[in-house]
Amino acid sequence: MTLLVAITGWEVEPWLDRFRRLLPDRRVVASGEPFDPAEIRYAAAWKHPPGAFASLPNLRAIFSLGAGVDHLMNDPALPDVPIARVVDDDLTNRMSEYVVLHCLMHLRQQRLYDRLQAERRWWDDRHQPAARDVRVGIMGLGVLGQDAAMKLRVMGFDVAGWSRSPRSVEGVATFSGSEGLDAFLARTDILVCLLPLTDDTRGILNASLLGRLARDGRLGGPVLINAGRGGLQVEADILRALDEGTLKAAILDVFEREPLDPASPLWTHGGVTVTPHNAAMSAPDAVGAAVAEGISRMESGLPLRHRVDRSRGY
Amino acid sequence: MTLLVAITGWEVEPWLDRFRRLLPDRRVVASGEPFDPAEIRYAAAWKHPPGAFASLPNLRAIFSLGAGVDHLMNDPALPDVPIARVVDDDLTNRMSEYVVLHCLMHLRQQRLYDRLQAERRWWDDRHQPAARDVRVGIMGLGVLGQDAAMKLRVMGFDVAGWSRSPRSVEGVATFSGSEGLDAFLARTDILVCLLPLTDDTRGILNASLLGRLARDGRLGGPVLINAGRGGLQVEADILRALDEGTLKAAILDVFEREPLDPASPLWTHGGVTVTPHNAAMSAPDAVGAAVAEGISRMESGLPLRHRVDRSRGY
Repeated sequence: MTLLVAITGWEVEPWLDRFRRLLPDRRVVASGEPFDPAEIRYAAAWKHPPGAFASLPNLRAIFSLGAGVDHLMNDPALPDVPIARVVDDDLTNRMSEYVVLHCLMHLRQQRLYDRLQAERRWWDDRHQPAARDVRVGIMGLGVLGQDAAMKLRVMGFDVAGWSRSPRSVEGVATFSGSEGLDAFLARTDILVCLLPLTDDTRGILNASLLGRLARDGRLGGPVLINAGRGGLQVEADILRALDEGTLKAAILDVFEREPLDPASPLWTHGGVTVTPHNAAMSAPDAVGAAVAEGISRMESGLPLRHRVDRSRGY
Repeated sequence: MTLLVAITGWEVEPWLDRFRRLLPDRRVVASGEPFDPAEIRYAAAWKHPPGAFASLPNLRAIFSLGAGVDHLMNDPALPDVPIARVVDDDLTNRMSEYVVLHCLMHLRQQRLYDRLQAERRWWDDRHQPAARDVRVGIMGLGVLGQDAAMKLRVMGFDVAGWSRSPRSVEGVATFSGSEGLDAFLARTDILVCLLPLTDDTRGILNASLLGRLARDGRLGGPVLINAGRGGLQVEADILRALDEGTLKAAILDVFEREPLDPASPLWTHGGVTVTPHNAAMSAPDAVGAAVAEGISRMESGLPLRHRVDRSRGY
């Protein structure tokens, strides 16, 4: 059997190297190289060239190399084979590092203290809130959302979560569905978005949602952290909410178009932190091993794990 | 009985208010106000005027209002009564917020990404280390050090600790005494100093110590976080180590003299983060309650908790 690696936007060589080391008895080809379509049994994909999987008669499964599978679902020529999301501790830990870092940055007002340092000003405010005074709300309670919730709780934050269908997470107040959204937003000082991008969630971070966040919090206005997908956010609405004071700050790892256009006002807005879609980067070492394990399971007749429900889109 | 509140450097009114609400049947006076020395039974102190406790014939105990008691020990006229350190969950949690924040800032290279944002540069480096690749070493394994160690472990860091006498902390490699210091430093990428200030520890963060930190780490040079006491550090040595590349960055919450002199080069050095001794601020609400509980215990004939060993100085 042969593994087809179809990647755009990332360096492909480290992935090919990793798969060749992990699967020494099998052939590993990159899309664009010559190969016989009939020999491809598995595909590993990140933003593959659309149509790349359309005419592979013996394809048995596609593995997404990053969190999220919207890059696959957007391909109208995607064949009807099982798709697996990557679920990897390394990826999960990195996402939680990012989320906890930026929640603490705002809790501890590090941006303010950086400005005071630049002015050589010693200002020891004795009224800063503790973590327990700050309500973090996580949208999306899959593996990533649950891990971030646990770590934020350990740090002392008051954590709630929202998901499409009801979920129970220890120590976390959970809300679900459109009927639970208002109550969730009304108690949220820092909104952390880790939702998958689907037809239902596209553009969900818009003026209407931002306007429903808590106004009575201890941070001087709500903070948005989006480390999910750029398609979840309406950047014009975020900028307007910042300018109108509906939002105090936005930490964005993802954008409507990536890389972010150098002309975007997000780069220079004082309330915005831009990171280059690296909150939780797929490392070939860890993610490659997860894919190799998935292939080995299928070859042994075991069911595919972390299989995507195509009707839900994630 | 009367409680004497002796504070300099902080606003005293919130403390007096808090104690008066907590101890409605007792008198609470501030140093500087008129009172009969014989009526003082307890004292609550933060950087008290030296000698303030010298002639109080009925003084039974002194409570320090902040972490650390060096401000008391420096008073040659300190009477020989029991001294209690404040141990308070709120103070402990705040210190850990600060430590975890600054460890994550360096793990995730947030200062670098801030600079890239200012240049509108999208640079998604796929080779950044994970928390498990970064070795944090905590000097001081009291209540604060142990809590920070636990939270850093939850975030995935590789954590070790050093203390004067041997300590055992779950999941943490521990080193002790001068014989354990070299091995501890040699495996430390981020050094977190939470030591008490005593004759033994004064100036311990000097050129010799900084030169023994790990040179083979994943952060591009060792990082120092001092949230203990300014007297632990030799600021000229820290600046030289930064300039010579022995140290990559220093995050300092405390200084040889506070407030930090506006002329200090620490304010403007690119490798230094200055915060105004607010890593773990004593909040009158929480700390006042801990002192009131300590007084109540003594009045009931129970032993004082968190009592200072004056021979060790902490």
